[in-house]
Amino acid sequence: MDVLALTFQAIPADIPVILDAKRGDVPNTSAAYADALFDSFHADAATVAPYVGLDSIEPFTTGSRYALVLARTSNPGAGDFQDLEVAGRPLYERVVERCVERFGADRCGFVVGATYPDEARRLRALAPDRLFLMPGVGSQGGDVGIALRAGMDANGGGVLPSASRSVLYASRGDDFEKAAGDAARVLSEAANAARAAATAGSR
Amino acid sequence: MDVLALTFQAIPADIPVILDAKRGDVPNTSAAYADALFDSFHADAATVAPYVGLDSIEPFTTGSRYALVLARTSNPGAGDFQDLEVAGRPLYERVVERCVERFGADRCGFVVGATYPDEARRLRALAPDRLFLMPGVGSQGGDVGIALRAGMDANGGGVLPSASRSVLYASRGDDFEKAAGDAARVLSEAANAARAAATAGSR
Repeated sequence: MDVLALTFQAIPADIPVILDAKRGDVPNTSAAYADALFDSFHADAATVAPYVGLDSIEPFTTGSRYALVLARTSNPGAGDFQDLEVAGRPLYERVVERCVERFGADRCGFVVGATYPDEARRLRALAPDRLFLMPGVGSQGGDVGIALRAGMDANGGGVLPSASRSVLYASRGDDFEKAAGDAARVLSEAANAARAAATAGSR
Repeated sequence: MDVLALTFQAIPADIPVILDAKRGDVPNTSAAYADALFDSFHADAATVAPYVGLDSIEPFTTGSRYALVLARTSNPGAGDFQDLEVAGRPLYERVVERCVERFGADRCGFVVGATYPDEARRLRALAPDRLFLMPGVGSQGGDVGIALRAGMDANGGGVLPSASRSVLYASRGDDFEKAAGDAARVLSEAANAARAAATAGSR
């Protein structure tokens, strides 16, 4: 907790903070988790697991809070349950549809693995105005350009590509700060170049 | 964290500890959560959310660890996704089947809300040798006798009924310790009486 608090202190005030907490509990407990993440830690958004139900997500979407609901995650086993066919379409599409019906675009977006661009394209069609957090760039093997092109909205926006290990652990040596900064910068430039190319191509 | 550590210290060594953490993340992060819950906090078991996939559950089932996977949760919105029909049967049954195939009975049980006895009966048929943690007794409205009869295995065991708020918040006054103890004792006696009646009736 102290390390998390120190990390928050080190982040400039104009940089949004997303807590990748993947919480999701019965409503009373979900409300307590949401209070902790948003009121105590002052997160701008948090990731939320949908299995427990819409009432478990709701406390993360009230007031100025913002939930990023797990839709299609970035891991190899993501399909075990998320791909199960419900009325002819995968479960992850149903999760997105139900959340889009229930929560406003300014209160709820989705986690869509950068490792699964085909699924990202399907979900963008279902949720044209939602933010997609796309983790799995870097160590998990997602390509930032492919992920961006798959997940982008009609205006060339709506995607937050995310890398964790490839930046955090860019170096174990004394140069870790510079190495992490360099890794983040390279990724940022690759993302911006891919976005520029994709939006230029669509004009 | 300090309050959690103090709570652990207050629990006698012969009482098993289940951390109702409902974690579930990509494998690398799930492994870190599992290390924290089992190696740092020395929990005996932890609850795990299945949506991310079997590889997100696996780190909670290695060595002497034990996962209680969310199957049918106790909240009003439990059916939003858990009841969706997959190949003619509800998703929560598929979750239980896949976990039973993948993880041994000594490493994995299930969370089945005491508020949903019909679902508990269906799941007991699918998982005759698994432990069911049945939360939702008390404040959430589950009846301990009905839950036990629905969830019990063929030997009259296999169920851990669980009440949280009705015990923790039995009193806000100075008598909170005695009131919580009394509430727990009343519940324990009701559970044992229901179990005795149910097993006597089946002989």
